[in-house]
Amino acid sequence: MKLLRVGPVGAERPALLDEAGVLRDLTGVVPEIDGALLADEAALGRVRDAAAAPGELPALEADGLRTGPPLAGIGKVVCIGLNYHDHARETGGAIPEEPILFMKAPDTVVGPYDTVLVPRGSVKTDWEVELAIVIGRTARYLSSDEEALAAVAGYAVSNDVSERAFQLERGGQWDKGKNCETFNPLGPWLVTADEAGDPQALGLRLWVNGELKQDGTTAEQIFPVAEVVRYLSQFMTLRPGDVINTGTPAGVAMGAPEPKPYLRAGDVMELEIDGLGRQRQELEDA
Amino acid sequence: MKLLRVGPVGAERPALLDEAGVLRDLTGVVPEIDGALLADEAALGRVRDAAAAPGELPALEADGLRTGPPLAGIGKVVCIGLNYHDHARETGGAIPEEPILFMKAPDTVVGPYDTVLVPRGSVKTDWEVELAIVIGRTARYLSSDEEALAAVAGYAVSNDVSERAFQLERGGQWDKGKNCETFNPLGPWLVTADEAGDPQALGLRLWVNGELKQDGTTAEQIFPVAEVVRYLSQFMTLRPGDVINTGTPAGVAMGAPEPKPYLRAGDVMELEIDGLGRQRQELEDA
Repeated sequence: MKLLRVGPVGAERPALLDEAGVLRDLTGVVPEIDGALLADEAALGRVRDAAAAPGELPALEADGLRTGPPLAGIGKVVCIGLNYHDHARETGGAIPEEPILFMKAPDTVVGPYDTVLVPRGSVKTDWEVELAIVIGRTARYLSSDEEALAAVAGYAVSNDVSERAFQLERGGQWDKGKNCETFNPLGPWLVTADEAGDPQALGLRLWVNGELKQDGTTAEQIFPVAEVVRYLSQFMTLRPGDVINTGTPAGVAMGAPEPKPYLRAGDVMELEIDGLGRQRQELEDA
Repeated sequence: MKLLRVGPVGAERPALLDEAGVLRDLTGVVPEIDGALLADEAALGRVRDAAAAPGELPALEADGLRTGPPLAGIGKVVCIGLNYHDHARETGGAIPEEPILFMKAPDTVVGPYDTVLVPRGSVKTDWEVELAIVIGRTARYLSSDEEALAAVAGYAVSNDVSERAFQLERGGQWDKGKNCETFNPLGPWLVTADEAGDPQALGLRLWVNGELKQDGTTAEQIFPVAEVVRYLSQFMTLRPGDVINTGTPAGVAMGAPEPKPYLRAGDVMELEIDGLGRQRQELEDA
């Protein structure tokens, strides 16, 4: 299923994109798309039943309707750094022996077509198309890939927007360049794991002003989805509604020759992942 | 005022500790102690009025009543590293030129007397008594100390529990050793800024098994509260209900001579900050 949330900021309603591409209102079926829904088999069953007979759900007029992030009440956003062979090479970093972990605050998450703000004082705002994992079951000290994949509710497109000077040149810890306002567009859809297919066989692409910058595949991930979830569960408890950004392939501005093409107000990012939909953000100054 | 939340995990009720030390039920005054309350002058006024006539509030029997964290719905926990001259020296690190920033997930926050879990595989679980700032107003690109202090709703005792091997020896970024389950006891009280006094003149102390380990003062902070809030607001938007752990003074296990006295199941931590109350946690294996 393709679940989404539509409406004004803070007043989104749950919706479904049916197989014919019609947007359907889920308001009468579930109150929200959040961790509580993902952990509730009975409620998820009602959504599945509704998805099987979409004609019985009210259609929504998509024109002019904002799309929010496809998940409300996100508990935490955990991010994996340097998780693609090609991206690790372009940054000049060694291939990590263990996943590198950093964090974004949930309030950095915005909708897939919302404006992204270039922070004041920024000269190195950069893009990162990423496969986001959405957690559906509490995960604590998992011991197998099977357990890890069972904890995954679904996937979404994520843009792990990053300010490289803040991240790397301002005295330590990447989080400083990862948590600026609007720095995590998510969506348009939460695609349930049963529909997303093999998470290690998804193409990811990102364009800036129409020019293809990133063109990778999750097959290049150093630590695949199951390993990332299993690994993280040794260091923290993952809960329904948590999000994991699994890293970005090569092609970010930081990896380009000088002068590096960092983002400026007026630039447009477009991102897509096979089967998970497409984002578009215009940049403005904060 | 000393605000707190009492009751079982996930079912805490708002309460007030009055000047006579009597616990008073705030259930009839406000629904919760959270960012929404702290940003709502009218609701805060009702709490102030109630605090001025505490005898009209129902008294609560404190015996046997659990104390939860004094704040619900925490949006993010931002932490400042190496923010005391003496602690920076003991870790062997240089004095930072700018605040070092890392993050804990809000779900690491537990009550001040709750059990703290030693993570599986941990051999370097460590303590850190810290002054926590609780944000009461949205803070974005602040330009003065006055604006920064106006964004502070109050203060609390925080234990920034840390696993040093996870933090420093597992491939990068401190967050990996800062986000284990139960790693952020907070409270017992949220003491409003008007009552807490000068935040740069507070003694902080921590004992392990009755032995004094940390005995510092916020006068030793490299970056004081106002500067921390102003600085962070350049990199992220701070919102009502966000928490900032402002760093720890000298005396952590990592800074001790070998064999370093890292925490084990059965150990007891006690922490206090002048005017902000006292915590006590026993450690158990996860």
